[in-house]
Amino acid sequence: MKKVINKPEQVVEEMLQGVVAAHPQYVKRIEGFNVLVRANGPTAKVALVSGGGSGHEPSHGGFVGRGMLDGAVAGAVFTSPTPDQVYEAVKAVDGDKGVLLIIKNYTGDVMNFEMAAEMAEADGIKVDKVVINDDVAVENSTWTTGRRGIAGTVLLHKIAGAKAETGADLTEVKRIAEKVIANVRSMGMALSPCIVPAAGKPSFTLAEDEMEIGMGIHGEPGTHRENIRSADEIASHLLEKIFADMPLQQGDEVAVLVNGLGATPLMELYVVNRKVAAVLNAKGIKTAKTFVGNYMTSLEMAGFSITLLKLDAELKALLLAPADTPAFVQF
Amino acid sequence: MKKVINKPEQVVEEMLQGVVAAHPQYVKRIEGFNVLVRANGPTAKVALVSGGGSGHEPSHGGFVGRGMLDGAVAGAVFTSPTPDQVYEAVKAVDGDKGVLLIIKNYTGDVMNFEMAAEMAEADGIKVDKVVINDDVAVENSTWTTGRRGIAGTVLLHKIAGAKAETGADLTEVKRIAEKVIANVRSMGMALSPCIVPAAGKPSFTLAEDEMEIGMGIHGEPGTHRENIRSADEIASHLLEKIFADMPLQQGDEVAVLVNGLGATPLMELYVVNRKVAAVLNAKGIKTAKTFVGNYMTSLEMAGFSITLLKLDAELKALLLAPADTPAFVQF
Repeated sequence: MKKVINKPEQVVEEMLQGVVAAHPQYVKRIEGFNVLVRANGPTAKVALVSGGGSGHEPSHGGFVGRGMLDGAVAGAVFTSPTPDQVYEAVKAVDGDKGVLLIIKNYTGDVMNFEMAAEMAEADGIKVDKVVINDDVAVENSTWTTGRRGIAGTVLLHKIAGAKAETGADLTEVKRIAEKVIANVRSMGMALSPCIVPAAGKPSFTLAEDEMEIGMGIHGEPGTHRENIRSADEIASHLLEKIFADMPLQQGDEVAVLVNGLGATPLMELYVVNRKVAAVLNAKGIKTAKTFVGNYMTSLEMAGFSITLLKLDAELKALLLAPADTPAFVQF
Repeated sequence: MKKVINKPEQVVEEMLQGVVAAHPQYVKRIEGFNVLVRANGPTAKVALVSGGGSGHEPSHGGFVGRGMLDGAVAGAVFTSPTPDQVYEAVKAVDGDKGVLLIIKNYTGDVMNFEMAAEMAEADGIKVDKVVINDDVAVENSTWTTGRRGIAGTVLLHKIAGAKAETGADLTEVKRIAEKVIANVRSMGMALSPCIVPAAGKPSFTLAEDEMEIGMGIHGEPGTHRENIRSADEIASHLLEKIFADMPLQQGDEVAVLVNGLGATPLMELYVVNRKVAAVLNAKGIKTAKTFVGNYMTSLEMAGFSITLLKLDAELKALLLAPADTPAFVQF
């Protein structure tokens, strides 16, 4: 197993120590838990908590900071965090205006975050939740009923985080989050598998000339496998699937995220973005902002996803608002 | 060849189109050349131009913007840009206060940037240069006389860029750049090779249990190969080599860059940073800021480098000054 680690069973613990050592101006750790919260928190606003299995870095700990998350819970690699961990995060970030849980749609995540919400509510903390399911590739999957939540989650963190920063109440922040979820769609592809440290071997195999379209961020099956095609053909196909699910009209405005899964060079992501921009231009769709890079990864998987978020004036203003976190800074 | 590209011979052209499409608020392209300059340039200050072979993204085009570079020249993959390309960049960014060329120490880069400087000087443009050689691994290498320039270049862009932004003259900006070069050291390792698109196959091979210590960012030989060791052992070894070359005392202050080469998960880079922070703490060395991520890559090579920059009050203030570029934002 070619990894730069110490012991596989220590990788999440040591990663979290490394994150806190790198970014003490942004995050601190809740002693005894795999939870990162803002260094200067809790703040007197609605707090946002997200998380999930580790292996998707910088999601979600990299997005803890002003204008985005208040807390992030790190499960074992590709494994939902337990309810007690989420519960600690909720307690730590609550500033009396309530806490919104942002959950990617995986059965374990939904169950454990909901259980944590019940525990926190029993303590008198106001908690609500949203579940994001932006992956248009497949209905139901290995660990999911319904669609999976993938890279669109990062735009959700950004926009809901900006809304919370305005002092909006929990109902309002949830309304904005639901609006993002209703208007964001993603789809990905993979060229190679990844290796979960504790497993020590690739999670699946792809032939040297083969790719998988619609693969999930834990290696869950996509729509099909086929021979590798050109970047333009792949990008066009992913966009067609997104447009089929969320029709866009001439004059509509979007945010674009071309997200790397971990091992795909930035050079290739920009080649993809060239085609994405060309397709959007040809359709007369405006782009308010484009993000290209590794935002929601799958360890060292090679591949990428495309996310489109349809904007209105409200979402656009929140998207473009400042943010200051380890992995997302904008001003 | 598992790559998301169209034609190998088009990859730099299409990447540049993708960068401009993604970040029009930051960069524009000089028509007919592989040069990115600030969207709002030229500005009335000393201008900084860097560049080199492509394949190291986000270096260098990702660092064009306020507080860092004014122009970046993209050669073919792992190939020095030609003098005429650098010359166009210099002409485009000059705002009458002169241009500083920031060159990584590779023979072709030095020769071609110097030739461009002569061409620009013949036009009456003030041009000066610095050559960075931060890689302590080996003296002389495949394409280098003396030491190679690697990830420390990003900190040089940051600090020289901040100095230029203050309105300092060319002599002053060069003085600061030379001070960074005198105080920055890096060393890397690789777990796997990368594939230059035009070649279509890996540039070298490493056995399944093998790593190379001190490898360059184009796959140039390092100091030795050995069986993969733990993240802590590797990090300690790289730091020892850096300390041997640049002794640091208790009470000294540094900036840290744990740089991914392209395919190494952020999780692993943070595991490395945990050890880097522990070693620095044990020595009583303070850390002013830590950067962890893919800043100077080698396409899809797996591996990382560690960079330490010894700071004084002047360098520290410039390091922490604001920057706003596609791949480096700080405020």
